[in-house]
Amino acid sequence: MAILIAVTGWDAGPWAERLRARLPDRDIRIWPDAMGDPADIRYALTWKAPASALTACPNLQAVFSLGAGVDHLLGQQGLPDVPIVRVVDPDLTGRMSEWITLQVLLHHRQHLRYAAQQRRHEWTPHAQAAARDVRVGILGLGVLGADAAEVLVRLGYRVAGWARTPKDLAGVECFAGEEAFDAFLARTDILVNLLPLTPQTHGLIDRGVLDKLPRDGALGGPVFINAGRGGSHVEADIAQALRDGTLIAASLDVFETEPLPADSPLWDLETAVVTPHIAADSDPDAIIDYVAAQIRAFEAGADLENRVDPARGY
Amino acid sequence: MAILIAVTGWDAGPWAERLRARLPDRDIRIWPDAMGDPADIRYALTWKAPASALTACPNLQAVFSLGAGVDHLLGQQGLPDVPIVRVVDPDLTGRMSEWITLQVLLHHRQHLRYAAQQRRHEWTPHAQAAARDVRVGILGLGVLGADAAEVLVRLGYRVAGWARTPKDLAGVECFAGEEAFDAFLARTDILVNLLPLTPQTHGLIDRGVLDKLPRDGALGGPVFINAGRGGSHVEADIAQALRDGTLIAASLDVFETEPLPADSPLWDLETAVVTPHIAADSDPDAIIDYVAAQIRAFEAGADLENRVDPARGY
Repeated sequence: MAILIAVTGWDAGPWAERLRARLPDRDIRIWPDAMGDPADIRYALTWKAPASALTACPNLQAVFSLGAGVDHLLGQQGLPDVPIVRVVDPDLTGRMSEWITLQVLLHHRQHLRYAAQQRRHEWTPHAQAAARDVRVGILGLGVLGADAAEVLVRLGYRVAGWARTPKDLAGVECFAGEEAFDAFLARTDILVNLLPLTPQTHGLIDRGVLDKLPRDGALGGPVFINAGRGGSHVEADIAQALRDGTLIAASLDVFETEPLPADSPLWDLETAVVTPHIAADSDPDAIIDYVAAQIRAFEAGADLENRVDPARGY
Repeated sequence: MAILIAVTGWDAGPWAERLRARLPDRDIRIWPDAMGDPADIRYALTWKAPASALTACPNLQAVFSLGAGVDHLLGQQGLPDVPIVRVVDPDLTGRMSEWITLQVLLHHRQHLRYAAQQRRHEWTPHAQAAARDVRVGILGLGVLGADAAEVLVRLGYRVAGWARTPKDLAGVECFAGEEAFDAFLARTDILVNLLPLTPQTHGLIDRGVLDKLPRDGALGGPVFINAGRGGSHVEADIAQALRDGTLIAASLDVFETEPLPADSPLWDLETAVVTPHIAADSDPDAIIDYVAAQIRAFEAGADLENRVDPARGY
């Protein structure tokens, strides 16, 4: 009855310690060097580990992804046929809404322009659009998108969202399915991406999509904010759109390659805000609390929550 | 039955035109050159005009201040003894909450640090405090303070407020009166000033007050945000506190002298955000709608709303 921690890019030790503190009766193993007999392993907690680490375990009952995105798992061939559970962490949701709200306000309230004026010691007030005239459009209306939408509605923005399937959120105009995508773009001044990375969303936000955003909105042009996955956007198209004015600004926390290469043109664009994938860091303690609670509930006969649908991709 | 527009620093013409459009049966006059017979004037709309422009009108019934602050009026000797009405504009409230929320998020989410890293093409994530561990304290719990507090509570911050008299706001720890001021400061990581400028608040936020903010909070030190009046703070003390680390950051929209002089040290401090008094620009159309509606209601027998208490100073 062992539990495996299988991560790459992170130090597994602190995760194992946290899990031991919450489930002291379990045998906690670490891939690859302290895995022991794979037949002992019932559960795996994983982040960017190869599928082979999981398929080696014949008695595996469930896999927990240690971040909100599961593209690191589902992108792999040969995954074991067991439930995959996505972490849903209230802290992560709040942090994501903070970062998105910060970026929306920053562009709406012309922070970059005033910061440039400050460097020149220049005192020049500019006219300010009313929030009710600024149309925010959120791609992805899961837990994260719904929470961000609620905060932005409270701040007075005209908020819409787009999702694969119909949603109903108070104060939010909800668009659903491919056939509604262009209408959603046509009414969106600030486009916020929160979609999971799947084969369908790979490279989705490209020049063609950016060209469909309106040029006559209250901000004088569209803004793109990506807090989802860098694989969903085409960075060369975003950089070009910022240069030629198709976009007036962008805030990017995720990139095609992370860390963002030092020679990316995005770093130096004065209308781009670049952050190092910090929009919604999870609190490791909250994640481990969540996983431990799920394992206990599962063993008491409950269904696993927040199971991923591999066919859907998230 | 004339109405007087008496403003300095603004062009009176557009205000007069807006008022004529809403009250087409009235005679709209402009101080000082198109005032006509002062005995005709029943109402004055004023911004930073001298008291003498008002005392010249023997039949004046009410004065409307064209901004939220009335310090420009009450600071003067010899005001006529008629009701003074403060503009309460829902747009202004929303804009103020936007600016305050932007500045709180900007400092909490380390925007200045990440912007500096962006200029160096540096990808380094930093640990992030949870909003529930960040204690925001709002000085002034009128319409503006209460609305900003509500948004910050929704975002998960631990919010308190201080006011002269006791208040009751959902999710906000309310401190009242001078005797509670130090306790309020001692629990505040991000101090937001929204107090009106009165003889009691002049120079209030000085070195002594900044020294009472805690050094061991979740952000590693206190932040000061002023969206009220520059006369309430001591800029030399703020600049010094930023230099010596007593404050880790500040966002200032208002200053002792406006425009902020080009040689102020605040412009160049890397931990200061300076904006040119744009936190909550009123929409002139909304203000004139408000004034016209009040005049009509007053003449129909209703009391004037949002009357200023000259003894209290706001």
